[in-house]
Amino acid sequence: MLLNCDLGESYGNWRMGLDEEVMPFLDQANLACGFHGGDPLTIEKTLRLAAAHGVTVGAHPAYPDLVGFGRRSMAMSPEELRSALLYQIAAIDGMANTLGVSIDYVKPHGALYNDMMANTGIRDTIMRTVADYPKPLKLMLQATVEAERHREEASKLDLALLFEAFADRCYDDDGRLLSRRKAGAVHNKARMLAQVEQLATASTVTTVSGDTLTLQVDSLCVHGDNAEGVQAIQDIRKLLTVAA
Amino acid sequence: MLLNCDLGESYGNWRMGLDEEVMPFLDQANLACGFHGGDPLTIEKTLRLAAAHGVTVGAHPAYPDLVGFGRRSMAMSPEELRSALLYQIAAIDGMANTLGVSIDYVKPHGALYNDMMANTGIRDTIMRTVADYPKPLKLMLQATVEAERHREEASKLDLALLFEAFADRCYDDDGRLLSRRKAGAVHNKARMLAQVEQLATASTVTTVSGDTLTLQVDSLCVHGDNAEGVQAIQDIRKLLTVAA
Amino acid sequence: MLLNCDLGESYGNWRMGLDEEVMPFLDQANLACGFHGGDPLTIEKTLRLAAAHGVTVGAHPAYPDLVGFGRRSMAMSPEELRSALLYQIAAIDGMANTLGVSIDYVKPHGALYNDMMANTGIRDTIMRTVADYPKPLKLMLQATVEAERHREEASKLDLALLFEAFADRCYDDDGRLLSRRKAGAVHNKARMLAQVEQLATASTVTTVSGDTLTLQVDSLCVHGDNAEGVQAIQDIRKLLTVAA
Amino acid sequence: MLLNCDLGESYGNWRMGLDEEVMPFLDQANLACGFHGGDPLTIEKTLRLAAAHGVTVGAHPAYPDLVGFGRRSMAMSPEELRSALLYQIAAIDGMANTLGVSIDYVKPHGALYNDMMANTGIRDTIMRTVADYPKPLKLMLQATVEAERHREEASKLDLALLFEAFADRCYDDDGRLLSRRKAGAVHNKARMLAQVEQLATASTVTTVSGDTLTLQVDSLCVHGDNAEGVQAIQDIRKLLTVAA
Repeated sequence: MLLNCDLGESYGNWRMGLDEEVMPFLDQANLACGFHGGDPLTIEKTLRLAAAHGVTVGAHPAYPDLVGFGRRSMAMSPEELRSALLYQIAAIDGMANTLGVSIDYVKPHGALYNDMMANTGIRDTIMRTVADYPKPLKLMLQATVEAERHREEASKLDLALLFEAFADRCYDDDGRLLSRRKAGAVHNKARMLAQVEQLATASTVTTVSGDTLTLQVDSLCVHGDNAEGVQAIQDIRKLLTVAA
Repeated sequence: MLLNCDLGESYGNWRMGLDEEVMPFLDQANLACGFHGGDPLTIEKTLRLAAAHGVTVGAHPAYPDLVGFGRRSMAMSPEELRSALLYQIAAIDGMANTLGVSIDYVKPHGALYNDMMANTGIRDTIMRTVADYPKPLKLMLQATVEAERHREEASKLDLALLFEAFADRCYDDDGRLLSRRKAGAVHNKARMLAQVEQLATASTVTTVSGDTLTLQVDSLCVHGDNAEGVQAIQDIRKLLTVAA
Repeated sequence: MLLNCDLGESYGNWRMGLDEEVMPFLDQANLACGFHGGDPLTIEKTLRLAAAHGVTVGAHPAYPDLVGFGRRSMAMSPEELRSALLYQIAAIDGMANTLGVSIDYVKPHGALYNDMMANTGIRDTIMRTVADYPKPLKLMLQATVEAERHREEASKLDLALLFEAFADRCYDDDGRLLSRRKAGAVHNKARMLAQVEQLATASTVTTVSGDTLTLQVDSLCVHGDNAEGVQAIQDIRKLLTVAA
Repeated sequence: MLLNCDLGESYGNWRMGLDEEVMPFLDQANLACGFHGGDPLTIEKTLRLAAAHGVTVGAHPAYPDLVGFGRRSMAMSPEELRSALLYQIAAIDGMANTLGVSIDYVKPHGALYNDMMANTGIRDTIMRTVADYPKPLKLMLQATVEAERHREEASKLDLALLFEAFADRCYDDDGRLLSRRKAGAVHNKARMLAQVEQLATASTVTTVSGDTLTLQVDSLCVHGDNAEGVQAIQDIRKLLTVAA
């Protein structure tokens, strides 16, 4: 089970994320592409950092909403969404190539990620666009109870998928993340590490009601926004190394 | 001598340029990359249009200044400029590849073009960046009396150059474009066609004072903003076909 | 019955709308505020133009979506929407005052207008924000069969409303605009003038199915995007002058 | 001698500046207007914070360069600059009025501030624009040896000026800030407090070469970017209270 993290989300003079502290412990860096964060200079610096640590890079495209950080759904047409995705993926891909690196996957950001999971039409547009890109790129989405259906959708397009789970979020009985508005939505450290271990060893999570849910997970999403996050990533890395 | 034109400069709901009317008569389309014009959907449509007409595509990167249409100099650091160029070139390159097309060259836009011609440091940053891109791309700049110096600068970087002249602009004795503020700066149609013919047959222009100036020109910059421009392009195309 | 039109929607180098041709025939100019169109210089020029023709000015705020021209719904929180509205209204208001003009009303643009009509929560945020502005400003919304309910909502906030109808759009039996996807959604000129006359003299429209619907209308929305639009506005103006 | 600080420079999800910690110790808050930082929601929150602490608010307009944080000179025409200033000032002014607050002055930001001090034409455009605004607003600029000339320029326009000095920056013998590239450009805390005390009690600074320079100063610019900055502001406040 790999570790992925959103990186390169600074913008101009505004810093976000402890990218330098986090990078050494990651397998996969989801790199902001300029639409929700990540100006060109930040992107180039983050690509160099990923290259220096041998971390695999994925494009992390978003709705074009800088002030909303890509967290607000926007009613884009399929054509607009396709072009916006291609633009962002291509920008990251070519910049990576210039530094001798290749991108490996695409993980939509924020509201676009949520819309992809909830809306068949948007997921279809995303899948077709990634499959259309002239280099083979995987699409990362959330591991849910609908994973089999997502695999079928993707296999028709010859698109490889990566499934991710969230280390610190409590799951409901339908395999969705418990809403942040509900008590217990975000695990404390002990529960988070227990969930990671369970995912790594048994490919299951224990839901909010105590049910056991099977989740085949390729990668674990972690967060490096602050010092606690960086420490948690190190702890998860250690745990996974022992488990492996 | 080829014909090049700035295209894809519409933005969202705002139309600019008669791209569909102009494209059939061009050899090279300078494609806006999103920083001074050209949103992703416009870029994709323009790439399809170029592909349909077999027109070679170049990236037309700019300073990040949408409201100023890239026509205002900005004091960017070399690092900022390099990253901004790579981002724009890569976005166009990858989108082109997705449609089965390749980009062939880079032509800076507006104030960045002027700054490249006037400022050694900025030209050096642009040359190094284009040379650094992992695919061979030519750099298009203005044919002036300093062309030999520009060739030397480029050859050190193994960078191929394309030199362009302007069909409808009067040249001063130093081989620069006469300022638009001066009388006679923009030729009428008869003078324009005469200048094109002279460039095509003798590789010279007649300057504002009547001097004859040698200009080795690979491509001629034309404008398709309105019906007169489209007609002028057709006339130039006919003239060049006869001359060839 | 007054005539209102969206103006000042050019952006930087991109022209949109025949503002100079249209302004002489209008009573109310809905002025773009920079979020979907209308850079500061365009705003100042349009304010001068309105002042020269004695046309009343309204703020025409939008979702922050330049590339989508404010035509795509965005999931903004009430706090975000309120601040975005205040910012846009204030910018127009203060610029108008600098030129000796006052703004009179607010008319939301595009997707925000549609969301205001369809969504009680969004309408509530808009009404409260306009009512909160320290100068009395009216809110312009669409005249529908729900006008009485809208008047009640507004009167609780001491907010004055302006109701508008559309000259060239066919109404369905519920008093909504017939979707543009349906046949007959946009009237030809004869039908448009007939609809205007009926609105002006009888305060009714004939719906798509032939029903008669009462609509109390303060202002008529017209469009000045092209020469036909400008001619239509002149014809409507003439018709209203005769009817008055 | 008052204390002023740049505030409200967060943008959407990106935090900048310890505004809440700093506000209680300030007299004047220079409020970002959205062009280099400061989205509408941040502006509204910062206005509320200023109001809660009785801090005077000034508009802090900038070049339209979010990714460059307004720190890069842009070649704007006088008309463009005037409109951009009016738009930003008006937005802040109207939002402040909505909260029952008034803005008192304008302080250009970053590269625009530097250009105002160095370039007569840009300063003239700024002075005329602020003087033109329909409410009396002061213009804040740097106290230099040219203050008398600046006063004369302003008095022709009936424009009131505020002169500011920098607490932590070393001055050269011409009364300019020593370039940050030179040793000793930024004072340590002891020297900073000594400079503040000297300014407060003697209206002079000691230059890099040891000369004494007279500077009539209305306000002192301080920085609240981090914990050290906040502590320094508290120390300066204490020192000024004792000196007063």
